[in-house]
Amino acid sequence: MAGRARRFGVRFRPHFKTHQSRRVGRIFREFGVEAITVSSVEMAEYFAADAWRDILIAFPVNLREADAIARLASRCRLGLLVESPEVLAQLDRMVAKPVDIWVKVDVGCRRAGIDWGDTDLLVRTCRETARRPRLRLRGLLTHNGRTYAAGTLEALARSHADAMAKMRRARRALGRAGFPALEISGGDTPACSRLDDFAGAAEVRPGNFVLYDAMQLELGSCREADIAAAVACPVVATHPSRNEAVIYGGAIHLSKDSFPAADGGPIYGRVCRPRGRGWGRVLPATSVARLSQEHGIVQTTARELERIKPGDILFILPAHSCLTVNLFDHYVGLDGRRVPTMRGSGPG
Amino acid sequence: MAGRARRFGVRFRPHFKTHQSRRVGRIFREFGVEAITVSSVEMAEYFAADAWRDILIAFPVNLREADAIARLASRCRLGLLVESPEVLAQLDRMVAKPVDIWVKVDVGCRRAGIDWGDTDLLVRTCRETARRPRLRLRGLLTHNGRTYAAGTLEALARSHADAMAKMRRARRALGRAGFPALEISGGDTPACSRLDDFAGAAEVRPGNFVLYDAMQLELGSCREADIAAAVACPVVATHPSRNEAVIYGGAIHLSKDSFPAADGGPIYGRVCRPRGRGWGRVLPATSVARLSQEHGIVQTTARELERIKPGDILFILPAHSCLTVNLFDHYVGLDGRRVPTMRGSGPG
Repeated sequence: MAGRARRFGVRFRPHFKTHQSRRVGRIFREFGVEAITVSSVEMAEYFAADAWRDILIAFPVNLREADAIARLASRCRLGLLVESPEVLAQLDRMVAKPVDIWVKVDVGCRRAGIDWGDTDLLVRTCRETARRPRLRLRGLLTHNGRTYAAGTLEALARSHADAMAKMRRARRALGRAGFPALEISGGDTPACSRLDDFAGAAEVRPGNFVLYDAMQLELGSCREADIAAAVACPVVATHPSRNEAVIYGGAIHLSKDSFPAADGGPIYGRVCRPRGRGWGRVLPATSVARLSQEHGIVQTTARELERIKPGDILFILPAHSCLTVNLFDHYVGLDGRRVPTMRGSGPG
Repeated sequence: MAGRARRFGVRFRPHFKTHQSRRVGRIFREFGVEAITVSSVEMAEYFAADAWRDILIAFPVNLREADAIARLASRCRLGLLVESPEVLAQLDRMVAKPVDIWVKVDVGCRRAGIDWGDTDLLVRTCRETARRPRLRLRGLLTHNGRTYAAGTLEALARSHADAMAKMRRARRALGRAGFPALEISGGDTPACSRLDDFAGAAEVRPGNFVLYDAMQLELGSCREADIAAAVACPVVATHPSRNEAVIYGGAIHLSKDSFPAADGGPIYGRVCRPRGRGWGRVLPATSVARLSQEHGIVQTTARELERIKPGDILFILPAHSCLTVNLFDHYVGLDGRRVPTMRGSGPG
């Protein structure tokens, strides 16, 4: 991905919320990465303590975390996200050192951000930022989550092109209003994995690609062999009458995120058997089809079920690796060594 | 609930997977509770260390946890769940002290358990249990999760009566096959909250009722005032054009469990404003309608949104409190004191 970003001609600011691990973060340094994205103040503190010095918190600024934000601003180049002009005066009073302000823009997700076409509100937000001495207006940021609903490469390309065009139009409108040279930050994992046109962007922030998962495989963002995280789940029962196995692997291990199967039912994960020190190919016509707190139900074929017994381990490739990793305090490497995550690390 | 169980004439063996807290567990002692249910070996160890001496692990036995199960069996009366006769020989070799065996019966959930009508497999499982010296055949256990789909009190009563009838029939069939006096264990939160007929059962194992949640409120299991856990979420943005607020409260805080709104969309939580040291009434026509990793989107009315500002706290009553509590390492009591959960406690 670092190589792709170089070819796109943009800064690579990977999102670290997927892996949440200092050890994994250090691998990025070997590829020349210096700027990162995180999703919370706590995560910014965790990585700042490992000498990351250019950190963007890609979540609308939470005024309740003023003290921690001020501390962070004095130890690294800190980027903050704003989508409401009301918070800017308070934010300016909160920090002693200058911070970068990115204005969150909504290109159609209707999650967070100012609508890309609401020039009045965009201008007002930029103006309120520019008049505060400790706030440096840096650019416009978006997350085009709609790429996750694109069924084909063509739909992905259309959605991405639409998002980039809206961002460029918003920037032009702000340029005319007296705010030239705003940077554009974008780039989700599906788009960065498969497309090449990031014209106009200053940086991309994909995160999931470091592990990928069953949903990205379904979207075509990656191949099976690119998926780098699985949950090792013991089989506790098999039900030949319905071609199902019960695993010790439920919502508290995998999360309840899912994507739809061809028949419309949810898929919470794909299933592999152990192989060597890792796992083998994805089992055909097999998925985690139901989840409760601790139980997972693996639906499979009679042929596959014959080879599954209580006490066996199945490796589950989760639907959404970001949420799954968040539920654990460490990884186990294929070499057997533990790699702690933020949750498994002490404070500071 | 302890009083209701006494009136039903059954043992009260509450499920502690909802609260996951020794401190909350001690409140149950004041109500005479001595027998508990947990959902994992780790949770059994956590409560055994707080002097609980009659613990049922209501999850099919995982042969990979042999050592921990053996240790538990020597320090308390341990109940284990079995749904595959294949595991019994190994289980018998694993433990030095006798353990109680409950046979998991499926009354129609198709999650775990032997189908209630599969007398052959039930008899074989009981026979394999009875011939092992350290396995004490105790009874039949079910979880009638179908009560969560019952839309009305009548449907709930029908589903519950059906489950109880199937359990009694399975017990009669086993009685005829030479296994008399098997106990029946059942009783989920919706049934135990609203129904009174548990004829034939030896014990009930509701868990969720200790906190309840927005889903149980929707089902009619409880009133608003019975809900004892909420997540305090800061507001980070408001969007008057679409009557929505963005809160710092996403899938990693609430879990992605949901129940359907009248229009079919998911509800991840109900929304309250702070009041005194706690929270006020549920806001009308307001819910958490979308969730991503850290973001929650609160849909509300223009009238309510006028009173919500960035920096405010909203209290979210989660859809499913069991999964939400599992994501935190402590509660904060209304008196401001921290109450650790299993996740926030050291080992042992």
